Amino acid sequence: MSELRLLAEKLDAADELAPLRDRFVLDDVVYLDGNSLGALPAHVPGRVEDVVRRQWGELRIRSWEESGWWTAPERIGDRIAPLVGAAPGQIVVGDSTSVNVFKALVAAARMAGEDRTEILVDATTFPTDGYIAESAARLTGRTLRAVTPAEVPGLLGGRTAAVLLNHVDYRTGRLHDLPGLTAAVHAAGALAVWDLCHSAGALPVGLDEHGVDLAVGCTYKYLNGGPGSPAYLYVRGALQDRFDSPLPGWNSHADPFGMSPAYAPAPGAARGRVGTPDILSMLALEAALEVWDGVSLTAVRAKSLALTDFFLRCVAEYTGPGRTECVTPGRHEERGSQIALRCPDAGEVMKRLVERGVVGDFRHPDVLRFGFTPLYVGFRDTERAARILAEVLA
Amino acid sequence: MSELRLLAEKLDAADELAPLRDRFVLDDVVYLDGNSLGALPAHVPGRVEDVVRRQWGELRIRSWEESGWWTAPERIGDRIAPLVGAAPGQIVVGDSTSVNVFKALVAAARMAGEDRTEILVDATTFPTDGYIAESAARLTGRTLRAVTPAEVPGLLGGRTAAVLLNHVDYRTGRLHDLPGLTAAVHAAGALAVWDLCHSAGALPVGLDEHGVDLAVGCTYKYLNGGPGSPAYLYVRGALQDRFDSPLPGWNSHADPFGMSPAYAPAPGAARGRVGTPDILSMLALEAALEVWDGVSLTAVRAKSLALTDFFLRCVAEYTGPGRTECVTPGRHEERGSQIALRCPDAGEVMKRLVERGVVGDFRHPDVLRFGFTPLYVGFRDTERAARILAEVLA
Repeated sequence: MSELRLLAEKLDAADELAPLRDRFVLDDVVYLDGNSLGALPAHVPGRVEDVVRRQWGELRIRSWEESGWWTAPERIGDRIAPLVGAAPGQIVVGDSTSVNVFKALVAAARMAGEDRTEILVDATTFPTDGYIAESAARLTGRTLRAVTPAEVPGLLGGRTAAVLLNHVDYRTGRLHDLPGLTAAVHAAGALAVWDLCHSAGALPVGLDEHGVDLAVGCTYKYLNGGPGSPAYLYVRGALQDRFDSPLPGWNSHADPFGMSPAYAPAPGAARGRVGTPDILSMLALEAALEVWDGVSLTAVRAKSLALTDFFLRCVAEYTGPGRTECVTPGRHEERGSQIALRCPDAGEVMKRLVERGVVGDFRHPDVLRFGFTPLYVGFRDTERAARILAEVLA
Repeated sequence: MSELRLLAEKLDAADELAPLRDRFVLDDVVYLDGNSLGALPAHVPGRVEDVVRRQWGELRIRSWEESGWWTAPERIGDRIAPLVGAAPGQIVVGDSTSVNVFKALVAAARMAGEDRTEILVDATTFPTDGYIAESAARLTGRTLRAVTPAEVPGLLGGRTAAVLLNHVDYRTGRLHDLPGLTAAVHAAGALAVWDLCHSAGALPVGLDEHGVDLAVGCTYKYLNGGPGSPAYLYVRGALQDRFDSPLPGWNSHADPFGMSPAYAPAPGAARGRVGTPDILSMLALEAALEVWDGVSLTAVRAKSLALTDFFLRCVAEYTGPGRTECVTPGRHEERGSQIALRCPDAGEVMKRLVERGVVGDFRHPDVLRFGFTPLYVGFRDTERAARILAEVLA
């Protein structure tokens, strides 16, 4: 057995998070795509069955109260809160990430005031954020400027209303400086809106600690909520009373069952709700979040960095130089929980990897993405992925 | 046995739709709240289990292609289409009704052009439509005017951009004249947007036939999609190329996996998509729609009217005059599939009814709502509900 395989065994044996793997349904595949769709937590099917058969099938309409359906968006928001460093009462779950980006950016522009005429958007971000930012700018009469995160500090000024940034770049896996950029945005009197899709559940975020104004994120990656599970919206407590939603659906009304023709926004996180929440997806997510019980995000982050370091070492040793180029930063403080390797025939390479039981994904035009989810990926998995990658590339 | 009970038995025996009840999970309760949350179709739990255990748990990310997750919004839209009288390719499923009202109204205002400065909204509609219309008007620089449907023809003019109407009033069960009002809106050069929440699955709608421009609806009432199942958006084929969404998420991009920083809208119904669809809720809905296989909406409508007629007759006979006031129109062409009775202590009365196994709902301040879902409610159920109502009221 190679030195790296022996080392992997040793690292797995010493890994305090290794037992968490049993909380998931997994097989022989090395699943490095949890940054796209998290694996199924083992207890979720039974919980979903209860929601369908008993809560819907037997209790029917009574479940809106008796099964806690109505309060699920805030309750699940409070379950996500500690994972992103937020005190309770600031996160609400529902809608897609895109819809939440829209709510957050329009509300941020309104809070910033009419004289702040420009929205900055991370041009390296997942495209949907840019598309939605364009729409939010158009509808609120602002101009939109697409910039790299590094350019942000130099472009902030008295006309800046809000800045939408991605915590971890979906392609390269680059982790941006949330504390530093948020502070810079605040120094200019603007609002900082962060997209946490690729960081929540992979590393500590510290929303409250760093004074982030608004944040959104999906729940189907590192939070394992299931395909298309609802996203969430964070509005800092101090800003909630000024949160003026562009989607003031009846679920965000102060008295939703009063059925008043006049809109009056609810206090607190519920103000970010819109329409009737999709209960099946939402309660699957709630169940999935139980895998985090007793898990330290510091330990998750440490293992994540150890895994990506180890993967890079194995790739370097097995593949040799030149065949791929790593576009993920080497410095820990700039790295999320994925490794992105550029190679010219990436699409074909990923197909072969999947055939051989190593599941990552391909991102146009030439990127192999490997996501490392510390809750269920180990060091032997990592070594095996690098070894098979080398064989495929050879 | 009373004459009405004998009649109910006779009507049930002659009811060609009666066997459809076996397609649902039901018990001894008389469930007259299918206009709020449809009952569970019997085959849905097994299908949801397959989605969770096999599609998510085993195939994981591969299911986006292999299990048809990616194309679900359009595919399920095409499954709903015949139920609302639409040819394929015009309906997309996803998001809540409120979010779809927003898409439809902003897009309608944009299609109408800048010189059309007013949006009319049905003031008798479910409040969320009014709240969202207010936001759409504010963001597109239009004024909003809340009017009754009857007032609409007299208020249309060259400044009217769009009119948002509810096909069936959620409180009174009044059915509005969709063909006539749509024609009047068109004669004024404006766009007609219909909310079908309380009509789809209860009666023929005829979207294509009557030239409706845009429509939205939920799927958890008469379509039995499950709690908070995703809503749908109809955009008439001829208007699709001009549909300019205020929520242009990556799912609506012409090449969503091209990850281009520039937005280019997809052709067809997909243009109404936003973010990643919530697959569990969506595929539960898809399964639920199979109960419509071979069901004629004409037969559903005929039974619906027979049920509500029969209920009114039983209430009149058992309760006598004066104790309740029916606010649902007597004329068939003005009646949806529910009966709303006003009585001063409606909240308390509904509680007692529920305790005695008759489930309707209470709408503020004084309305008892009884929804008649022809797929699983029969005439004996109807007679029993009226009988117990009389006992509770006595």
